[in-house]
Amino acid sequence: MNILETVAAARAGSLRAVGRLLSQVEGAGRDQVLAALEPATARVIGVTGPPGAGKSTTIGALVGAYRERGLRVAVLAVDPSSPYSGGALLGDRIRMASHTNDPDVLIRSLAARGHLGGLAAAVPAAVRVLANLAYDLVLVETVGVGQSEIEIAAVADPTIVVLTPGAGDAVQAAKAGLLEVADLLVVNKADRDGADQTVRDLHLEVDAPILTLVASKGEGLAALVEAIDAHHRADTLARRTARAHAQILSLAQTRLREHPDLGRLADEVANGRRDPYAAAELLLGGLPEKA
Amino acid sequence: MNILETVAAARAGSLRAVGRLLSQVEGAGRDQVLAALEPATARVIGVTGPPGAGKSTTIGALVGAYRERGLRVAVLAVDPSSPYSGGALLGDRIRMASHTNDPDVLIRSLAARGHLGGLAAAVPAAVRVLANLAYDLVLVETVGVGQSEIEIAAVADPTIVVLTPGAGDAVQAAKAGLLEVADLLVVNKADRDGADQTVRDLHLEVDAPILTLVASKGEGLAALVEAIDAHHRADTLARRTARAHAQILSLAQTRLREHPDLGRLADEVANGRRDPYAAAELLLGGLPEKA
Repeated sequence: MNILETVAAARAGSLRAVGRLLSQVEGAGRDQVLAALEPATARVIGVTGPPGAGKSTTIGALVGAYRERGLRVAVLAVDPSSPYSGGALLGDRIRMASHTNDPDVLIRSLAARGHLGGLAAAVPAAVRVLANLAYDLVLVETVGVGQSEIEIAAVADPTIVVLTPGAGDAVQAAKAGLLEVADLLVVNKADRDGADQTVRDLHLEVDAPILTLVASKGEGLAALVEAIDAHHRADTLARRTARAHAQILSLAQTRLREHPDLGRLADEVANGRRDPYAAAELLLGGLPEKA
Repeated sequence: MNILETVAAARAGSLRAVGRLLSQVEGAGRDQVLAALEPATARVIGVTGPPGAGKSTTIGALVGAYRERGLRVAVLAVDPSSPYSGGALLGDRIRMASHTNDPDVLIRSLAARGHLGGLAAAVPAAVRVLANLAYDLVLVETVGVGQSEIEIAAVADPTIVVLTPGAGDAVQAAKAGLLEVADLLVVNKADRDGADQTVRDLHLEVDAPILTLVASKGEGLAALVEAIDAHHRADTLARRTARAHAQILSLAQTRLREHPDLGRLADEVANGRRDPYAAAELLLGGLPEKA
C-alpha cells in the first residue's frame, strides 16, 4: 500500500491505516506523508502534570464534553519511559474505556524519545495527519516531569497543568518549569482537604487562571471547557511571546542539566579548585553547537 | 586610621571599626584588609526562604541557642533590594532586639548588588574578618527569591531553607532553585493547619532532612540545632559535589534568564519564524564569555 492508498484507507475508517500514517510521521517517512496531505490543522490541547494527578481522567472527561458537541477527538498520550510501542498503551485503553468503541475518538501513544526532531516536531506532523482525517481536536497528554511537556507547550493552545491539592504536585511542576508554560492550572481531586488553600497559594505564584475539578465525577468540567474556549478566543501575540520565552528557557535549562562537563565542574568546585561562578561561565561558554 | 589600627580597634571592641573593615572587604579594599588578617575561618550557616517565612525569627532563635553555648555569633543580612546601607537595617535591628545589646552578637546588613565578585566572593571575605575578631559562627540571611542564596550556598554549611505550610512558599523555593541547594528544610509556623501534610509532600520531592519549627515560641529549636550539628559532622565530598552541581546550574540558569537575546528569540518563536529548539540552541551557543 503506498502513501496515497494508506491515506485513502485511513479516511475510509481503517484504524490500522491511521496507525501506519502516524508511525511514519514520527520517523523517516514524515516528509513523504506530509507531502501527500492537505495543509489542514486541528486545535491542540496539551494536558500535563505529575504522575497520579488525574491527567487521563481529566482527558476522558474532556473527550466526553467535546463528543457531546459533536466534535471528533484524538488523544495522543506521550510516554517518556516506554520505547516506541506502535499503538495505544493498555493503561490508556483502560482509563479511556468509555470512549474506545466510539469511532469518532482515536487514542494513540507516542514515545517521547527517539523522534526525529523531538516531540516539538513530531506532534505538529501527527496533528496534520489527524486534521486530514477530520479530527477537530487533538488532546496531547504528557507525564509532566521532564522536557516533553515543554516541547508540547510550543504547539498546544492551551497547555493545561493538572495538579492535586497540597505542596507536592505544585513543587514538582515548579521544578520541571511547568508552571511557567501553563495557560490553565487545574487543581484536580478538589474534594480533598486543602484544595482551597492550594488554589490561594498558587494564585500568588502564577498568573494563569486556576480552576478546581473533580474529574472522576465531572465536577467543574463545564467551567474547564469554558476556560479552554475563552483561552482560545483570547490568545494574543503577547501571550504567545510569554510562552515562547518560557519554552526557550526551559529547553535551554534542560540542555544545561545534561551538559557533559557539568560533573567535572562540580567536582572542581567541591574540591575548591574552581569557584561556582567561573564554573557556570564555563558551562555556558563551552557548550557545543549541537548536543 | 590605617588597616592595622582599624583591626586593632575592632579587636578591642569598636563596632565602628568592625563596620569599616566589613565595608572595605565588600569593595575595593578587600585584598588590603585580607592581607592584614590571619587565615582564620568561622562556620557559616545560610538561612534563606521566601519573604514572611520567618527567617529573621529563626535566626534570632538560633542566635539565642548558640549564645547559651557561649559562642560569639555574627549575623549578616543580605538585602537584594536596598542599595548598600553601611549598617544594619532598622527592621533587622527590631527583629533581633533581644540580642542588640549583647557585645558577643554582631548584626550587619550587606547589599546583594554591586559587590566586587558578587556575594560568593564578598561573604567569605567578611567571614574571614569576623573569624579574626573571634566570632565562632556567622549566620547569613538571604531573602530567597533570586541569585543571592545560590551564591551563599557555595560557602554555607549547612544552607537552611525556611518555608511556611502550604504550597506557596514551597513553589517559590522550587522556582528559585532553592530546594536543590537546601541542606536542611524547615517548615516554620508548624502550628498552622496543614504543616504535617506539607512535610509529607516535601519528603517526596527533596532528599534533605525536613524539620518543623515554631520559631517564635522556640518549639523545635533544639532539634534544628542538633540537625545543624549533625550536618556539619556528616558533610562529605559527595554532598559538597551535589551542592556544587546545583549551584553551578542555578547560576547558569540565572544567566540565561538575563540573556540579552532572549526577548528577540521569544518574539521570533511567537511569530513562527523560529522553532523553540533552535532558539534554545542559539541562547546557549551565543553567550558572550562574560556578562
